[in-house]
Amino acid sequence: MNDKSAPVRGDFPHFMAIPTRWMDNDVYGHVNNVTYYSYFDTAVNHHLIEAGGLDMHNDTAFGVVAETGCRFFSELKFPDIIDAGLRVTRLGASSVTYEIGLFRNDSDEPAALGRFVHVWVDRETRRPVPIPPKIKRALEPLLAGT
Amino acid sequence: MNDKSAPVRGDFPHFMAIPTRWMDNDVYGHVNNVTYYSYFDTAVNHHLIEAGGLDMHNDTAFGVVAETGCRFFSELKFPDIIDAGLRVTRLGASSVTYEIGLFRNDSDEPAALGRFVHVWVDRETRRPVPIPPKIKRALEPLLAGT
Amino acid sequence: MNDKSAPVRGDFPHFMAIPTRWMDNDVYGHVNNVTYYSYFDTAVNHHLIEAGGLDMHNDTAFGVVAETGCRFFSELKFPDIIDAGLRVTRLGASSVTYEIGLFRNDSDEPAALGRFVHVWVDRETRRPVPIPPKIKRALEPLLAGT
Amino acid sequence: MNDKSAPVRGDFPHFMAIPTRWMDNDVYGHVNNVTYYSYFDTAVNHHLIEAGGLDMHNDTAFGVVAETGCRFFSELKFPDIIDAGLRVTRLGASSVTYEIGLFRNDSDEPAALGRFVHVWVDRETRRPVPIPPKIKRALEPLLAGT
Repeated sequence: MNDKSAPVRGDFPHFMAIPTRWMDNDVYGHVNNVTYYSYFDTAVNHHLIEAGGLDMHNDTAFGVVAETGCRFFSELKFPDIIDAGLRVTRLGASSVTYEIGLFRNDSDEPAALGRFVHVWVDRETRRPVPIPPKIKRALEPLLAGT
Repeated sequence: MNDKSAPVRGDFPHFMAIPTRWMDNDVYGHVNNVTYYSYFDTAVNHHLIEAGGLDMHNDTAFGVVAETGCRFFSELKFPDIIDAGLRVTRLGASSVTYEIGLFRNDSDEPAALGRFVHVWVDRETRRPVPIPPKIKRALEPLLAGT
Repeated sequence: MNDKSAPVRGDFPHFMAIPTRWMDNDVYGHVNNVTYYSYFDTAVNHHLIEAGGLDMHNDTAFGVVAETGCRFFSELKFPDIIDAGLRVTRLGASSVTYEIGLFRNDSDEPAALGRFVHVWVDRETRRPVPIPPKIKRALEPLLAGT
Repeated sequence: MNDKSAPVRGDFPHFMAIPTRWMDNDVYGHVNNVTYYSYFDTAVNHHLIEAGGLDMHNDTAFGVVAETGCRFFSELKFPDIIDAGLRVTRLGASSVTYEIGLFRNDSDEPAALGRFVHVWVDRETRRPVPIPPKIKRALEPLLAGT
């Protein structure tokens, strides 16, 4: 990987270990591109639940995914263990942009870099609402450059 | 496949076409064993929704999966189209046993045979309840041997 | 959806029908964001196999996914049938950029819009190679604006 | 769970921790029944790779799944961590039957009990062959009752 703009392990304030699963591998013998997004999804929601007290069944507001993206730099394979680094690159009134770096085993350079935009909406009306305070408090420590 | 006891295409009263997806294939170049169960799950729930009016968000009773199983006879591959045949082999007061045959493209013999047991429970108490009448009416025409 | 820049159904030269599956739905009762990428992956590879004669086991060159992205406009749900529209927005020497529009049932406006970049590499060296002629012939008719 | 015949945590000689993922949860807010099989698949193959030296790309023999099954006793949910206990209940010449117990967090009683039958076949002919010695050595210590 020779993309100088990509962050390295030390740029992420929070990590979650995600072991790969057998069926993550596709016919080419590496983790299928789709599955990377389940790592992003898991890293983001795990933090919202553990640090932010997200209650997906009862909270009146929840995060809708507005946009995601991924740049793939190198392979991941079962049985690798992935360290998913999480940081926040933009924290708005109703929306948050996360960046997720996937680090294979002990590597310092990411195998992939994900982008994930959540917009907080009211469960009933599905209209944007301010990010709930308990969630905001969980996101602020992850702001890049802070 | 030389298991004389396995049903053939003509033994199933109801079918649903399920196209395989790229990531259904695993590293061995065929559909991963786990994915067969998503075909079973889809065939059963599609029938309950379309013929039985199942409303997964509002019904007071829903089907909990108590037991599943599968015998694998031959490979499935992307981009096959699977005909999932569905029949009911036991219809009890609170529970139903489905059998699902997966037929690859135009084959008359199943590539796999699934077994799927639903127990109907109350959404709040999670205690068994009688199968709701609208569901029962959707299952009776699928009873094997009728 | 009020993004004027997003293409509509008529902008796509090729379609593939993808029925949703029960487990595509997540806890919020709609198709999980990750699963949209399996629709993209399936639409792209299905075309490469059917129209381009891609042989994923024996071809000396294959497409590695370099980058993907998705903008989400509205919900998809089981048991929807998704029409995945496919077009090519950039066809280079070694790489191709696809755009995939996901249309729910009879809708003319996309529920989501995907971007998918394939780089063709040699199976052994994993170095970029020219897109194989059989693949190129399958992609040219999908070029947007032609 | 009141099935006296089901094994408990202490009956399994080998464990693997499998964290659940966000998208493992289905619309009912618990891990979808299909996903349990990906835990079985992962536990079995992880052991074959780590302890048995399975090389899924180059070994001349590999394990084909002939039959699987699962009894579901209680819910699993994201973000649970599952301890997948693995043992061998039958070790034949060409085939092996595994039993997998899924234990939620610190529970001693399984949330589900899986059965998984592998038949070893030649990669080319797909005919049954003796279980390779390196694999057999990895399975013998897992034999139940030894």
